[in-house]
Amino acid sequence: MGDAAILANGALSQSTAPDSLTFRISPPAALVMDSGATLSPLTIAYQTYGALNAARSNALLVCHALSGDQHVANLHPVTGRAGWWETMVGPGLPFDTDRFFVICSNVLGGCMGTTGPASINPETGNPFGLDFPIVTVADMVRAQALLLDHLGIETLFCVAGGSMGGMQVLQWAASYPTRVFAALPIATSARHSSQNIAFHEVGRQAVMADPDWRGGRYLIEGARPSKGLAVARMAAHITYLSDSALHRRFGRNLQDRSARTFSFDADFQVESYLRHQGAIFVERFDPNSYLYMTRAMDYFDLAADYGGSLANAFKGSRTRFCVVSFTSDWLFPTSDSRALVRALNAGGASVSFVEIETDRGHDAFLLDVPELIETTRGFIDAAARARGIS
Amino acid sequence: MGDAAILANGALSQSTAPDSLTFRISPPAALVMDSGATLSPLTIAYQTYGALNAARSNALLVCHALSGDQHVANLHPVTGRAGWWETMVGPGLPFDTDRFFVICSNVLGGCMGTTGPASINPETGNPFGLDFPIVTVADMVRAQALLLDHLGIETLFCVAGGSMGGMQVLQWAASYPTRVFAALPIATSARHSSQNIAFHEVGRQAVMADPDWRGGRYLIEGARPSKGLAVARMAAHITYLSDSALHRRFGRNLQDRSARTFSFDADFQVESYLRHQGAIFVERFDPNSYLYMTRAMDYFDLAADYGGSLANAFKGSRTRFCVVSFTSDWLFPTSDSRALVRALNAGGASVSFVEIETDRGHDAFLLDVPELIETTRGFIDAAARARGIS
Repeated sequence: MGDAAILANGALSQSTAPDSLTFRISPPAALVMDSGATLSPLTIAYQTYGALNAARSNALLVCHALSGDQHVANLHPVTGRAGWWETMVGPGLPFDTDRFFVICSNVLGGCMGTTGPASINPETGNPFGLDFPIVTVADMVRAQALLLDHLGIETLFCVAGGSMGGMQVLQWAASYPTRVFAALPIATSARHSSQNIAFHEVGRQAVMADPDWRGGRYLIEGARPSKGLAVARMAAHITYLSDSALHRRFGRNLQDRSARTFSFDADFQVESYLRHQGAIFVERFDPNSYLYMTRAMDYFDLAADYGGSLANAFKGSRTRFCVVSFTSDWLFPTSDSRALVRALNAGGASVSFVEIETDRGHDAFLLDVPELIETTRGFIDAAARARGIS
Repeated sequence: MGDAAILANGALSQSTAPDSLTFRISPPAALVMDSGATLSPLTIAYQTYGALNAARSNALLVCHALSGDQHVANLHPVTGRAGWWETMVGPGLPFDTDRFFVICSNVLGGCMGTTGPASINPETGNPFGLDFPIVTVADMVRAQALLLDHLGIETLFCVAGGSMGGMQVLQWAASYPTRVFAALPIATSARHSSQNIAFHEVGRQAVMADPDWRGGRYLIEGARPSKGLAVARMAAHITYLSDSALHRRFGRNLQDRSARTFSFDADFQVESYLRHQGAIFVERFDPNSYLYMTRAMDYFDLAADYGGSLANAFKGSRTRFCVVSFTSDWLFPTSDSRALVRALNAGGASVSFVEIETDRGHDAFLLDVPELIETTRGFIDAAARARGIS
């Protein structure tokens, strides 16, 4: 058994015994989902950083993206790598853990400890697979709200996230307007575009085309559709970068060779890089969970849930918003953020908007982009003053 | 055996008995390729439209793109559909078959009759598969030049094509400057970008991940990696369109249903459309040929072949160029065409450049875009007058 297989099992073990705090909901309590399905029991795995103050007013919820998880600012239990937002979360950083109680939970349908398709279906004793109900962004947020109830947090100081995390931020503000003091949606959209649905469908078809997917029953049948998931990840990864970032970083440079090999080897650095991205992803992510996450994003259309008007979703909101986009993000282009800002304005919400100049594409929200760090710091500090957090 | 299987066999039968004119090169004649490989015997399958004039001065070579073939302006023998450039080629059209002798050959490495990986390797009696030598754009053009020799055509009135066809146009002008009177490269680039190599690598990995690919030996082993090729085509197809074209055509419209199904069905029209594009492509295209075509494009870097200077490739050229790009083409963006135009100018060539405003993306070169038709007509008519073609 190679390292990849060991790590794959390591990742899957997180769905039964996560290296995280957990909150368990058991019957008769349950989560009622958009699909009409009712889920119980249900585990939510989460991490926290910093301490909740006496007024319980300093909780900051971080929402993770499609391939992220709750390990925001600690070593990852499966990969051993740093947390995914260590530029943002920590002492003295914008989400200052000396001041704020930062919470991040693995989303519903995820694979790092929160109940998802790799979890055991109590009705069968086997992993759910495709019997897991389809998850929406609103369902993810409902689960997070139950966690906050459990933690005794009535109102969040702030909810923040990028990409699918940003969708959760918007859903929080719409679903629970009185529970969100400040909201920071980054590199996101109030609805998933046709092109983005198309890319997700390619990824799903890549997973489902792998015969080891076994109709979603690979865990039961002892298989693993790693090749299909790797292809899905490779395709998606291109969309997270920008043409110019790829050009700057890789150009047409050859990988460890001085001339083309006239073969299908990974002659170009960019090929080698992509193959690596595919290979490391399958070590930590559940293929069915990938299907559910992409579907949740595809289904996200906040206006549709509010009579076709995005402004209605935020009508009368007292939440302070800071919307951030990146110039080179072609997955969630600035035009999506502008549409969101217009709707927030039309809904009467308080909103600031920053478009950050960078060639680093969608993934800029995860990177050490100084203007992002400073924008976030400024927004958070002002909101903390308004909220009376020292 | 379903329709798909029948058509797949129909497509493959073209590699042994094409419904086209053919030109066969036999030993001792041979094609010497960039890789150093020597290919002989070799068949080139081609179509012609119109008649060669007495002066042999009215030949117009059309070069096809990655997934195209020689069936430019006739019913396709496998799909039964119209030719791929019937907006451009025909009586009274810009490539006027009443005036010009239009030629299009299936490229080297293709699968519609010209020798490629699905052809029989005379050394083994089996299809080449991955034993077929890697093909470059320069190799494709060398094969076309041998065909023109055979047809007794010394100088082309014009060579025209889009995307990979445009790469061949540029290669023609660089390799055989005295044989090309006019050149019309559309929606193309003098080198394949890092992002484009990345997308091609995803496609190749999708094909190779399909266990029915069998290390490229699927024809020998009676298999067919249709699922992998369909995924590759789906991913590529998104890059041929634009975000706004997808939004205009599909948006978030649902397919034959009034509400989301909360499943992995193709709820959205764009998903259904993409699945269809994948399904029809595998009926007519050889998976290994797809690998070779993408590799040829990746390897294309005209400047690299001329001491790192693109201007050198066209130095002293007497060919008249018309370079065309489309505003919404993000695969071969206008910036690539501008770089090409600068190099042509620096090389002292005669060049006009038209950037056409359209939201139809890269595929605009195949579509009935009035400004493209009129631009082409104007360029061809002026060149014909200069060439003394009535």
